[in-house]
Amino acid sequence: MSLVQDTSPAQVDETVAAADRAAPGWAARSRAERAASLRAVADELDRAADDLVPIAIRETHLGEPRLRGELSRTTFQLRLLAEVLEEGAYLHARVDHADPAWPMGPRPDLRRTGIPYGPVVVFAASNFPFAFSVAGGDTASALAAGCPVIVKAHPGHPALSDATAEVVTAALPEGVFGLVHGDAAGVAVLTHPKVRAAAFTGSIRGGRALFDMAAARPEPIPFYGELGSVNPVFVTAAADAARGETVAEGLVGSFTLGAGQFCTKPGLVLAPRGSRLVAALAGGALPPAAPLLNDRITDAYLHGRQRLRDHPDVRVVAEGPDPLSPSVFATTVTALLADREVLQEECFGPTVLVAEYDEESQLLEVAGTVAGQLTASLVADEDDPLAGELTAVLATKAGRLLWNQWPTGVSVTHAQQHGGPYPATTAVGTTSVGTAAIDRFTRPVAYQGFPQTLLPAELREDPASSRVPRTVDGKQEQP
Amino acid sequence: MSLVQDTSPAQVDETVAAADRAAPGWAARSRAERAASLRAVADELDRAADDLVPIAIRETHLGEPRLRGELSRTTFQLRLLAEVLEEGAYLHARVDHADPAWPMGPRPDLRRTGIPYGPVVVFAASNFPFAFSVAGGDTASALAAGCPVIVKAHPGHPALSDATAEVVTAALPEGVFGLVHGDAAGVAVLTHPKVRAAAFTGSIRGGRALFDMAAARPEPIPFYGELGSVNPVFVTAAADAARGETVAEGLVGSFTLGAGQFCTKPGLVLAPRGSRLVAALAGGALPPAAPLLNDRITDAYLHGRQRLRDHPDVRVVAEGPDPLSPSVFATTVTALLADREVLQEECFGPTVLVAEYDEESQLLEVAGTVAGQLTASLVADEDDPLAGELTAVLATKAGRLLWNQWPTGVSVTHAQQHGGPYPATTAVGTTSVGTAAIDRFTRPVAYQGFPQTLLPAELREDPASSRVPRTVDGKQEQP
Repeated sequence: MSLVQDTSPAQVDETVAAADRAAPGWAARSRAERAASLRAVADELDRAADDLVPIAIRETHLGEPRLRGELSRTTFQLRLLAEVLEEGAYLHARVDHADPAWPMGPRPDLRRTGIPYGPVVVFAASNFPFAFSVAGGDTASALAAGCPVIVKAHPGHPALSDATAEVVTAALPEGVFGLVHGDAAGVAVLTHPKVRAAAFTGSIRGGRALFDMAAARPEPIPFYGELGSVNPVFVTAAADAARGETVAEGLVGSFTLGAGQFCTKPGLVLAPRGSRLVAALAGGALPPAAPLLNDRITDAYLHGRQRLRDHPDVRVVAEGPDPLSPSVFATTVTALLADREVLQEECFGPTVLVAEYDEESQLLEVAGTVAGQLTASLVADEDDPLAGELTAVLATKAGRLLWNQWPTGVSVTHAQQHGGPYPATTAVGTTSVGTAAIDRFTRPVAYQGFPQTLLPAELREDPASSRVPRTVDGKQEQP
Repeated sequence: MSLVQDTSPAQVDETVAAADRAAPGWAARSRAERAASLRAVADELDRAADDLVPIAIRETHLGEPRLRGELSRTTFQLRLLAEVLEEGAYLHARVDHADPAWPMGPRPDLRRTGIPYGPVVVFAASNFPFAFSVAGGDTASALAAGCPVIVKAHPGHPALSDATAEVVTAALPEGVFGLVHGDAAGVAVLTHPKVRAAAFTGSIRGGRALFDMAAARPEPIPFYGELGSVNPVFVTAAADAARGETVAEGLVGSFTLGAGQFCTKPGLVLAPRGSRLVAALAGGALPPAAPLLNDRITDAYLHGRQRLRDHPDVRVVAEGPDPLSPSVFATTVTALLADREVLQEECFGPTVLVAEYDEESQLLEVAGTVAGQLTASLVADEDDPLAGELTAVLATKAGRLLWNQWPTGVSVTHAQQHGGPYPATTAVGTTSVGTAAIDRFTRPVAYQGFPQTLLPAELREDPASSRVPRTVDGKQEQP
């Protein structure tokens, strides 16, 4: 039961109006100025850690080390995006000089850069109260791009949301950041004509409902939803034979990390029948039960776990004394393919399902038919005959492939990709983690025949202080 | 009345199945091989020109010079995309080496490239029977990206579609290209689970209906629809005073080009009351009437033109003897803002509406409230006090801004942007013209911890023959 009042329709209107008023000024700030603002937000959040972390502990059941680490990740993201702004490659600037000899007819002077969309709404996630919430990756990348942000707070941590928002708001120009509480307020922002894009992290059901609303607007807007994924792991017979016990150890560490409440938790493992992996899982120790984020998630988890446990084709491999103890279940690939609805559905919490195959070729069959995924992992050897084909098939299904590594612990880097075919994301070509997340909030504009003085700085012949990597007449140029 | 039979449901299924079977092989071809295939298609189309152009003349009422020019544009596009493939920057390759000192915790080896979506459907346009039809820009960019293409033929030129498809099919591996006829077949392809993206050029009504279907699929797919635009032109008082007659001449050339049947036809002009521009339009000569593309377009145009002509706030500035003669109408900015539905709607054909302002500040008012546009043009001087603000506001409304130039004649270049906020496009960050059009058909995949031999060539440490520009540890590197 939240102690925070839902935002009223009048307050929603005022929050959006303030964002709309702030949009031109925020977009017009130089990249250096916006970078300085992002760093100011990061510094203030670091400074407020001793105030914020205790609220987060109280509201999420997560421990202090995890939460302090997550806050560091959050401020790291803000600072990394400040570097991205300063470098400027994210603008994808292109300059084509006029060319009377261009084969399809005289070419005008055309110059293309990225401009921010305008106000955007971010729906905060429950499971990362810092890194995917008020000041998380979506907010950071939208602010960096030059978009004012309105966050719809997650009801799992309302007081933390307010406290974080206070810090962020104070560090930014008026109207550039706003916060609303309540589902109705979230929908009102999403469907407001002045709001130009949306980002979301959460469940398939909730995310799809919001995606549908964004698409049904008189003027549809991009909806960057990160909805769900079972993150399958494909273990070859050779790898199991060589190191099944080590694989079991790694798997337990990954699927129980954060009590299994990560978007990239490995929820489904393909292993040979009679594997050393399953034997090790059956005989090994599992971590103790831990409280989940909130009552709603606990209820949904226990329901999903029970549905798996009651399935006629599922047997228990290992489970602890408490319903919230980590659980390992097993089934067959045949059953997995026959009941996608139950056996291939994400179960958010500390449970993993092992599907046992008789023929290694069934790995390809499963890979070719699973839904879109954030990640897919191969536990295999380089000379496994299936490795090449499995990699190629899985690339069509997931945003990130892992080789003998575990998908939890998503690094914030330049090459990160957190997003894959639906339902992993609703916008398949985008990522919500890593520096490319900023691409979701800029759109290209071409300037034809413009005088130098009226061009954005990065498109001028002598860009002086704001040099960026550009493609000039089709050739990449460094500043 | 089309002489071509609609494609049956069974034939649709077989066409999609063939595309799906062909997808892995087409994606796995090297960029050099796909480039060679694109050039082969271009060569064969050029060779078939004497067969294709007469069919196009018969079916579209467009003249031979225009159609031969358009075919050249079409084969130029294919060859330009072959160059884009060879260069490889479109992959947006990023390599992050493992870094134990990465501030947010040890960074794994992560490498990201673009892979094709899989089979896509292209809905051909009526008004460019070559360049936005069977072998047009959408098809070329999807094929280049590595996606098999199924074209839904436009009913305005069915025989040309068949003849073009025959040439394209013969030059490509089996299943990589397919063609269907009929609205039901188009919908069946769009909603087929194996189809991964769609491109469309056409009307707002038709495009929105298809967009809604793509979004309502169990698994929504990207729908790149280019729907409509009035392409407003903003003439400042100073520019009108200095050169109103020249502006009139340029405007007539642009809005009557191709009988006004271009997506970027300037349909709305803002000019000062009592302008030299309107005086020149009233007194000058207009080109003769020309037949439109087909009966459906003629009916829609005559209806739209009549609705404008009958509007109580609209007066006739100039019109010819025939209903299909070019027409110039005028209204006031006040009326324009009061009746957006009629006065700001695209009228596809040789008509332009001039909205007269009393105060130059009304230019900003209109710019701030118009719907999303493919283009917006400024007819102004560099020292016009409004020029900077008008440019900034229009950048939020359009994909391409022009300075004292006319929006028709869209050059196919690296920096081109043909796409803007809805309804200009349904996917606001994308372009359907220029080399960046390929970005619509690849999505990023990150490989974590992979052995060199299993990585795509462009991500290896020694990419040997397939070197591409990459971002390595955050720094841009040239091959």
